Amino acid sequence: MTDKRNKAIGIFDSGIGGLSVVKEIIKLLPNENIIYLGDTARVPYGTRSNEAIKRFSLEDVNFLLSKDVKCLIIACHTSSSVAGNFLKKKFNKIPVFDVVSLVLERLGKSKKKIGVIGTRATIGSGVYSKLNKVVQMACPLFVPFIEEGEIRGDLIKSLVEKYIGYLKVDTLVLGCTHYPIIKDVIQNVLPDTELINPGVFVAEKLKKYLIKNNLIINKKSEGKKIYYVTDLNERFIGIAEMFLGKKLNGKIWKVDIE
Amino acid sequence: MTDKRNKAIGIFDSGIGGLSVVKEIIKLLPNENIIYLGDTARVPYGTRSNEAIKRFSLEDVNFLLSKDVKCLIIACHTSSSVAGNFLKKKFNKIPVFDVVSLVLERLGKSKKKIGVIGTRATIGSGVYSKLNKVVQMACPLFVPFIEEGEIRGDLIKSLVEKYIGYLKVDTLVLGCTHYPIIKDVIQNVLPDTELINPGVFVAEKLKKYLIKNNLIINKKSEGKKIYYVTDLNERFIGIAEMFLGKKLNGKIWKVDIE
Repeated sequence: MTDKRNKAIGIFDSGIGGLSVVKEIIKLLPNENIIYLGDTARVPYGTRSNEAIKRFSLEDVNFLLSKDVKCLIIACHTSSSVAGNFLKKKFNKIPVFDVVSLVLERLGKSKKKIGVIGTRATIGSGVYSKLNKVVQMACPLFVPFIEEGEIRGDLIKSLVEKYIGYLKVDTLVLGCTHYPIIKDVIQNVLPDTELINPGVFVAEKLKKYLIKNNLIINKKSEGKKIYYVTDLNERFIGIAEMFLGKKLNGKIWKVDIE
Repeated sequence: MTDKRNKAIGIFDSGIGGLSVVKEIIKLLPNENIIYLGDTARVPYGTRSNEAIKRFSLEDVNFLLSKDVKCLIIACHTSSSVAGNFLKKKFNKIPVFDVVSLVLERLGKSKKKIGVIGTRATIGSGVYSKLNKVVQMACPLFVPFIEEGEIRGDLIKSLVEKYIGYLKVDTLVLGCTHYPIIKDVIQNVLPDTELINPGVFVAEKLKKYLIKNNLIINKKSEGKKIYYVTDLNERFIGIAEMFLGKKLNGKIWKVDIE
């Protein structure tokens, strides 16, 4: 019988931005096996209808389950916001973690003034309205800028200023997997604000959960990583490596999930 | 037996930008029936692989054929560039017109210095290299800007200047259905350049073809228009009306083509 501990962690995102979450998981849990799915044929989810987001997310989860993972992580904030509860109810035999719930869990009792930025769908879902003192702002052009490598210079600075330059908050949640890439630009525009990368919350929660449930991998070597995408071109690989912060070394595969 | 002349014109685009082509067709051929398909669940095509673009385009055409149209128009430049020839070979029993071929037909013998701007996939396909003296430039952030309504002000002006401010051409082809929306901004940055909207070429070619082949609709009233999209939310309708230049009046339907 397979040792359940040695099964992979399954994680999906609308595209390759979720690799910024994988990066944090690898930092804390380097020995774990990871299977990643990025729905690059249909990215971005953030501008689609709730119905489409739910359907796509369901197909993502079904693919990961077919790979027999030990737990599921929804790295995509849009998918977490719109389809998180739906997926948790539907797949209640496997632990499902989503970025949004972890932000709510960690910041839910905070008395600070919190800002949240995200895609139009994430912010529109109203999921962050549960926080105490919260200001929310959709920043729909951040994702295309980042995917185009427009991550330094005057243009991205003007856009950041336009979207959030006026914000007066103690803490700002980077509520999209892409945003950690422009953390420095945002910090420059809001020098006194603490920036939160929810990918760190995911990694910390996952580590605690695996320890508590005796599910930490039973091997001491570097874990195996497999990256699946629904569409693959040369450019994606460069962007993927930007998010992951390291080389992919050929571990990326194209797969059809529709 | 149905009068073949009264069948609809079928037209598809990766999203709703193709409505800028429909707008030109309506100007020249107001009595024609039009069936439009926008693949809004998978827009944009311009950043995807050639394989994905071909597969999506094929599904788009199959949907329109199921509606028994009298001819097919590929409004999407990305789809025309990457899948145009493939589709024309596969569907050789129905006239298929694509924006790119019409630009080549009209400007192929020009001695002027021509610039072409488009998505990364359109420019990367090399299809416009057949022109005489040509400079080509991918402008990948124009589409998200336009879809976000960032069509006037400093930010779009800076982007236009960054992408094409240095161009010295007599004629500039707006090689993406979205670009006519920011025609004024582009003209402002390049005041001495003639701007070409290929949607006008489509309408002119179509009119000639229909007259020559006795396929002009046999009715004198305003033609019926039906708009299908693969994903629908409230925002799309506003953007759609921006491209079309008039109200949709509820003639938009969601359809599943995957």
